[in-house]
Order: sequence, then structure tokens, then C-alpha cells
Amino acid sequence: MWARELAVSAPGKVILHGEHAVVLGKVALAVALDLRTFLRLRPGAEGRLSVCLPGVGVRRSWDTPGLRALRGRIAGKSKSPSVEQLDALREFAGIAAGASAPESLATLAFLYMCLAISAKYGDVPSVDIVVWSELPTGAGLGSSAAYAVCLAAALLMVCGAISCPLQEGESTARWTEEELTLINSWAFQGERVIHGNPSGVDNAVGTWGGALRYQAGKITPLKRVPTLRILLTNTKVPRSTKVLVAGVKEKILKFPAIMNPVLDSIDAISQECQSVLEAMPANPSPEHYPVLEEFFDINQHHLNVLGVGHPSLDRLCQVTASHSLHSKLTGAGGGGCGITLLPPDTSPLAVEAAKQDLCACGFECWETKIGAPGVTLHCCSSLSAQVLHALARS
Amino acid sequence: MWARELAVSAPGKVILHGEHAVVLGKVALAVALDLRTFLRLRPGAEGRLSVCLPGVGVRRSWDTPGLRALRGRIAGKSKSPSVEQLDALREFAGIAAGASAPESLATLAFLYMCLAISAKYGDVPSVDIVVWSELPTGAGLGSSAAYAVCLAAALLMVCGAISCPLQEGESTARWTEEELTLINSWAFQGERVIHGNPSGVDNAVGTWGGALRYQAGKITPLKRVPTLRILLTNTKVPRSTKVLVAGVKEKILKFPAIMNPVLDSIDAISQECQSVLEAMPANPSPEHYPVLEEFFDINQHHLNVLGVGHPSLDRLCQVTASHSLHSKLTGAGGGGCGITLLPPDTSPLAVEAAKQDLCACGFECWETKIGAPGVTLHCCSSLSAQVLHALARS
Repeated sequence: MWARELAVSAPGKVILHGEHAVVLGKVALAVALDLRTFLRLRPGAEGRLSVCLPGVGVRRSWDTPGLRALRGRIAGKSKSPSVEQLDALREFAGIAAGASAPESLATLAFLYMCLAISAKYGDVPSVDIVVWSELPTGAGLGSSAAYAVCLAAALLMVCGAISCPLQEGESTARWTEEELTLINSWAFQGERVIHGNPSGVDNAVGTWGGALRYQAGKITPLKRVPTLRILLTNTKVPRSTKVLVAGVKEKILKFPAIMNPVLDSIDAISQECQSVLEAMPANPSPEHYPVLEEFFDINQHHLNVLGVGHPSLDRLCQVTASHSLHSKLTGAGGGGCGITLLPPDTSPLAVEAAKQDLCACGFECWETKIGAPGVTLHCCSSLSAQVLHALARS
Repeated sequence: MWARELAVSAPGKVILHGEHAVVLGKVALAVALDLRTFLRLRPGAEGRLSVCLPGVGVRRSWDTPGLRALRGRIAGKSKSPSVEQLDALREFAGIAAGASAPESLATLAFLYMCLAISAKYGDVPSVDIVVWSELPTGAGLGSSAAYAVCLAAALLMVCGAISCPLQEGESTARWTEEELTLINSWAFQGERVIHGNPSGVDNAVGTWGGALRYQAGKITPLKRVPTLRILLTNTKVPRSTKVLVAGVKEKILKFPAIMNPVLDSIDAISQECQSVLEAMPANPSPEHYPVLEEFFDINQHHLNVLGVGHPSLDRLCQVTASHSLHSKLTGAGGGGCGITLLPPDTSPLAVEAAKQDLCACGFECWETKIGAPGVTLHCCSSLSAQVLHALARS
């Protein structure tokens, strides 16, 4: 029986370069965002499994014998969630068919991962799980993947499939490469429950952290990645990724000779950026930044050419440019989020002024980092007061 | 002896697409701008040749026998101005060696063309010439070429090398294709006096009007060109074409894989735009415009990627976008001029509001047309009161 109180965290992700072009076979760079999802794992009452997701208003608790029986009924050979399995889980949890609200999908993914992992590696555990995230949901920042990575790590650890690497007196620890591969593969199954057909990039970033290159289904972690300070700004303008992707495709079909070279240029930006990042020291000094800023500016123009810009993103770029900072949209565009590089010589006053100006536009703004570590095990007492408070409110 | 009072006009030019890329072998489209240079030709006092250029403060008059003697001294076989010929003309006119002020270059070009054309086709004429332009000088709008085209046409006509095609009772007339070729070749010599090593595009646009394609030294007039209404806006931000061209070259050498595809895309825009223009009716209706607007937007982004944008040009684009109008820089960039398409369904109020907002930015703004006719002969009484007034003030 699980006896320790521990926490697991996983980072969000942003696309540094290559959004949209990646759909058409070009290289994209995804980087771990140091806005993290935290999972607190506690021994539960014997025979009870509880999950609490304060961010989406979920608080559920089940008898482990009931879960065990359900698991027996839906046991399958495949590691991937089947339609029948998910239907049975929905029925069990009282989730309507086709429900796509975050609370429904998060509950479904939790149940699926819990039953599938425990079926393969151990018994249904009697634990209390709370998950809280610094990441906004539905903003293209990989919040569902960070959730799935945390769940996979915690459940695999509780079931004994991976070790508990945290030694007495340590505040954080990470798993071995082999264990991370297992965490990632299960997180991917959780992502499948939530998204249907995910690329696997988000859970890979959540697991390994740092940065990775993605092209035509192939995911390759970068050898070395510096930690770079950024502002992450959410314009809060809602958008449909599907509509934006279709718009890009249409534009390429309409003007192939004009648009295909733009995709080639974006591809080259991703590749050049990879080289620059791998050549940068872990703590880069100011002179390493101008090229990264130039890539931001060029790609932001290219994304506008692809038709995925938005007046709110233009505004974001203008506001940060007025503080000599360089920004680009990240992800689907058409609103959503933008990232702004903060070179080490940026004065704290300039950062504060930029943040205030962005907030004055009605945007939400975080000062954070990219190239953050992947899934991490924490001693609870080492977590920040803010995180502890958020987890304790549940 | 010349006995009629007539006027000749020639249009300015703007680059529609392909600025900068053309230097690197890509296609550019140059179009005739309906801001024109006007030359009034009158019989002069016997034995006197006078020229008056109110725009640059030139008012000169010479004895024709003196000019004839000078002509004899500097006669050469080549059609191109030689260093020795220009030195002799400078000495005659009291222009310092290396003087590059517009008044010096305009006087020098006038003397060169007058003596070279009269030497080949007739006698030094006794005429009064006044030249006035709607075009600002030094703004990349081909004002020197329009001047050279008007001079070439007037002097060739006075010397009998080309006909005087204006019939009694007609208000305007144009020359034959063969005569236009001769006008263009002499205008090019005038441009050489002023610019040293011009591309020949500006004088070709001034001569033939409409639009032409330019690539790797080859100039091809477009088969058919509609007349399109535009706003031409001068940001009045001074810039050095030489510095901007060098900057583009440097950026391409620094990031060839990123920048070369951008040049390819610009090339494709010029070619697609040529096809669209040639397929448009002479008086296009609103539905013909969205593609041209899209090309403006894409190319403006590309020009920013090449590094030839400027905050004043961003402002110009924003201001016109706020009136649902699409703009791009034209020419060297880094300030200078921008053009804004005015589809036929643009309300006069919107045009007026856009002009006012542009003027409020400190810009100068003209409502004019592109695809204008080339060099034209006018009966003076058919000219507008404004033009007549400007010519008469001299």
C-alpha cells in the first residue's frame, strides 16, 4: 500500500517555431514551458480512490472493489483506449456520450489510465490525488498533456512499474530514461482519451522537458537547451485550430508558388534555431539573443502571411516592441498566445512595464521560462507556498 | 522654326512588386503613376533657347550660336554622354564638378539632350521650355525619368526627328511605337546624365505608361493593364537606397536558407500579379481587387522580413487597415513612399478619412492612379487650370 505523500509536476509546452508548417511536413521546435501542472499523491482511506481537479471543478471518489470489477469487464489486449472501453467508463462515471467539457475528459482520462495501468502493473490503488495547474486550459499550452504525464508518473509509481527515485532529504528527483519512456507512452494514451488523435509532441515535452524537434511524426529531443526567460501572453481571443489549419491549406492551394517558399523559410528557421539553441551555453549572455529575436520577427511575419495572425497579436507585438522586446504568436494563432523573449540584460523595470501594458490590453501575462525540466518528483515541503495552497484548498 | 505652343506630359512610376528582389534577379512590376511631369514648349525669341524649371529653381537662357559652337566642340560619335562632354557642359553652364543638386543635374541633362539631339536631327532650336511636375523629387517616383522623357519628346519633335501627332481640334495625341522607342532611348541618355547607371525602367514606364515587367535587365511591357486607383503616401522619412540594398544582401548572406525562399515568394507574387492584371478588364469591378490586396499584404510582410520596413510604414499600413484598405511600401523602403489600393467600391468618405489620418501622421498623400498613359502630347488649352497656372507662374 502506498504510504508517502509526494508531488509530481510536469511542464506545459509552447511551439517555438514551425506551427502550421509542421502540419505540412516541415520541422517544428516545441519547448517545455515552466508553467507546470502539479499532482499531489497521498495515501487514501483503504478501499477508496479519490481524484480532485480544482481547476475544472472535479471531485470524485470511488470504491476500489467497484473499479476492480469494472476493470475486469473492460480488460483489453491493446494499450490504446478502445471505443467500447471508453463507453463503459463513461457509463460508470455518468458522463454523457460525446461530452467534451474539460471536466468530463479529465475524469475519463483519469479512469482509463488508472484502470489500464493498474491492470498491467498492480492493483487499483487506494490513494488521494489532487491535480492543479499553473497552465490555462484550452490555450494550446499542453495542459492536458501535463495532466496526463503527471497521472502516468504517479500511477506507474504507485503500482510499482517505476521506482520512487526521491531519496530521504532530497527535494526533487527525476526518473531514469527507461522510466521516462514508459511514463511518456502512458501519458500518450491519456492524451488519446482527451484528444482522439494527438501528435504525441505535448506529452513528450511534458515528460522530457527542454526542447524537441518534431517532423513528420518523428520526435527528437534536442541535445542541449538553454533556459530562456520569456513573457507568455494570452490574448484570450478564442480561435478554432481546425479552421485556422484549413485556412492555411486553402491559401497554399490558391497560391502554391507564393506560399510554398514561405513554408520552406519557416522550416529553415526551425532548423537554424535548433543549431543556435544547441550551441548556446546553459545560461546564455545578452549577445546570444539577437539572432533568436530576428527569428521571432521573421516567423511572425511568415505566420501573418499564412493568414493566422490577428489584430490582438499585432497589438501584442507592437506593445512589446515599444519596450525593445521581440514577440511571436505560438501555436494555432488567430488570437491565443504569444511569446516574448526576455534577454538577460532586460531591466526588471522594462519587463514590469511591458507586463503592465499587455495587461492594459486585456491580455493575461506570465513571466516564465522555456527549456524547463520535464516530469519531476517533489518532496511536498519543497513546493512553493502558492502551489501548496492551491493543492490544499481542494 | 518651331511655331506652335504645345505641352508634353509623362507619368511617374511606382514599383508594384519586386523591389529589392529585382536586384537579385527576380521579377519586378513597375507601373506608371498618374502624377505627371508637364513640359510647355513655346516658340522663343529668335536665337534664344530658354529653360525654366520652377520646381528646382532653374531659369536659364542661352544664345543659340553659342550652343551651336559648344556642340561643335564636344561632338562625339557615341550616343552616350562621355565624361569629357559632361565636363565641357558643366564648364559652359557654370556647374561645379561633382555638383549633385537637382538643379545642377537637371540643367546638365537639358544641355546634353538639347545639343546631342539637335546635332543628330536638326539645328539648336529657338524655343522656350518650362517643365513642372506633380511628382515630388527624390522620392523614388521616377521624377527625373519623367523629366527626361518630356525633354526627349519635345526636343525630338522640334528637331523633326518625330512627328507632331496632334491634329487641329484634338486635345491629346500619342506617338507611334517607333517614335516612342526613339523617345525612350534619348530619355535613357538623359537619365544617364542624372543617375550615372540607371536601369532604364523609369524612362520606359514614363514613355509607354501602363505597367512593365523587369527582370535581369530585360524590360517587357504588360499586354493589358487596368487603371487602378491608389493613394500614394510619402512618409517623408529620408532613407539611403544604397544602405538598404546592402542590408538586404547582408541578411541573405547571413541566413540564405531562410531568406532565399522569401525572394522566391516575392518573385512569384510579381508573376501572379502580372497574370491577374493582364486578365483584369480595363475598368475592374470590386471583385477583382481582393487578390491584389492579398498580394500587397504578403509582400509588405516579406519586405519587412528583408529588413526594409520602417515604423512610419507600419503606421501607414495600420492607418489604412483601420479603413479596410491595404498598403505596401514601394521602392527602397526604410521610409519613403507607400501605396494603398482603392477598390472602386471604396466610399469617398472612407478615402477622405484615410487621407486625413495619413496627413495627421505628418505624411503627404495623393489620391491618384496607376496604369496611367505614357508620354502624351497635349493642346495647352486642354490642360487643367492647376497645371496651366503652375506653368504660367514661370
